[in-house]
Amino acid sequence: MEILDGKKISNQIKEEIAVEVAQMKERGEKVPHLAAVLVGNDGASLTYVGSKVRSCKKIGFESTLIHLPEDTTEDALLKQVAELNANPDIDGYIVQLPLPKHIDEEKVLLAVDPNKDVDGFHPTNFGKMALDMESFIPATPFGIMELLRRYDVDTSGKHAVVIGRSHIVGRPISILMSQKGKAADATVTLTHSRTKDLKSITLQADIVVSALGVPNFLKADMVKDGVVVIDVGITRVPDETKEKGYYITGDVDFENVSKKASYITPVPGGVGPMTIAMLLKNTLLARERHKTKEA
Amino acid sequence: MEILDGKKISNQIKEEIAVEVAQMKERGEKVPHLAAVLVGNDGASLTYVGSKVRSCKKIGFESTLIHLPEDTTEDALLKQVAELNANPDIDGYIVQLPLPKHIDEEKVLLAVDPNKDVDGFHPTNFGKMALDMESFIPATPFGIMELLRRYDVDTSGKHAVVIGRSHIVGRPISILMSQKGKAADATVTLTHSRTKDLKSITLQADIVVSALGVPNFLKADMVKDGVVVIDVGITRVPDETKEKGYYITGDVDFENVSKKASYITPVPGGVGPMTIAMLLKNTLLARERHKTKEA
Repeated sequence: MEILDGKKISNQIKEEIAVEVAQMKERGEKVPHLAAVLVGNDGASLTYVGSKVRSCKKIGFESTLIHLPEDTTEDALLKQVAELNANPDIDGYIVQLPLPKHIDEEKVLLAVDPNKDVDGFHPTNFGKMALDMESFIPATPFGIMELLRRYDVDTSGKHAVVIGRSHIVGRPISILMSQKGKAADATVTLTHSRTKDLKSITLQADIVVSALGVPNFLKADMVKDGVVVIDVGITRVPDETKEKGYYITGDVDFENVSKKASYITPVPGGVGPMTIAMLLKNTLLARERHKTKEA
Repeated sequence: MEILDGKKISNQIKEEIAVEVAQMKERGEKVPHLAAVLVGNDGASLTYVGSKVRSCKKIGFESTLIHLPEDTTEDALLKQVAELNANPDIDGYIVQLPLPKHIDEEKVLLAVDPNKDVDGFHPTNFGKMALDMESFIPATPFGIMELLRRYDVDTSGKHAVVIGRSHIVGRPISILMSQKGKAADATVTLTHSRTKDLKSITLQADIVVSALGVPNFLKADMVKDGVVVIDVGITRVPDETKEKGYYITGDVDFENVSKKASYITPVPGGVGPMTIAMLLKNTLLARERHKTKEA
């Protein structure tokens, strides 16, 4: 059994990006600039956005945090988005989800310039991804693909079973893994809440990607020997003995499933850190694409 | 065994649309207007486009055929596309594929206004479809979904196996059938050229969608009793005894597979006629959406 060490690989990727940024600076070029828009004071969102901004600083990106109050109107947010679209200094930006309930997320999402949509959530990017065109791939599935590539996990012709059909993980990873290319060319089954007898399906899987958010869901009797397990679940379980008041757990019964697996991602330290690394990678790509257009 | 009669259902749909168009006329409203751009003289393309234009006439749509010579430049075609985008009289249009080799299809595709893209091939529409937003669904998968809905075929929790990962059929139908809703909520496995032991997978299928284009590919020993079979293959097999010099056949060994199937589409007369009906449906939707915006 080998651990797919997302923490290690994400650090490698960040170092590679840092080298590129240093070279940009040496050449006197503009460095990538990521902006993050946060509306309100959701605890998890504050943590995520803070972590993204710190990562930018570490690798030499410019970053801007736009923190708006909880009662920001939809119009005001759309105006902010329009300003970010128009600002040539910003290469890419994210609008941290979830947004307060009085704001229509779809409307905001559609207002983001696809050329700056480093989250890859705009339908134009999603469609380009599905149609094998150049796009921004959503950071979590992009991170899973990169992890599989860096560990040279053989996926071609393998049976990959994805659990969960969310827009940000299950759906895109099911598309990416069934396309042509490295870490892809798999036969992919997408399962979800209506799937009957899931166990009979996961037992056939050479690769399982669990993106459900239910702790301890995937158990050892649901997988076959030698399976590759990607655990995308990140659930905060309240725990007063911890300093933060909670601990993080994935979808997988790691202790027992890992005994049967050939490769497995831990939680934390698996897919999570890869997500931030790939957001930075997308921002670097955005800078490079804008530069090509400017030239 | 029941035939999923695409010819019958497509005629029903066309009649329904004709009724709506007649009502539009009565109210003194503009009727839907479909344009088709054809470059060159490919035999099959001429047939398809001709059939689309005739169908428009029959149901009361306005239609325009723009037939450009084989040596049309990419620039000239892009100019034509820009004119169609700008023309408020045109509700939707298609650029018939394949285009001559000297023209970049992706470039042309991206130039089509997504609001007039009744083929649903633009990445913005494809992405919206994948993300459960209002869009134009590509006509062939849209036709398959509609056929399943009209025959009330139970797909929820069923295992659907799609053969072929093309952008216009395999990929979109695998997405649509695994979404929430009617004729959907299936557990979907997408198979393709790299899939190993396809037979072991199709034997598990409650529903098989074959979109391969290989005559006689799906045989009776590859499916289980009671299977629902959707045959998307349309291959012209040369045959001098036929008036046209060829006959049309699907991917499925119909004679033998139909004995095991609960529902099956014939070729011709199955998915094919549905495709044109759904193109007309998309054009009607385009007209309705434009009207809403004009109001």
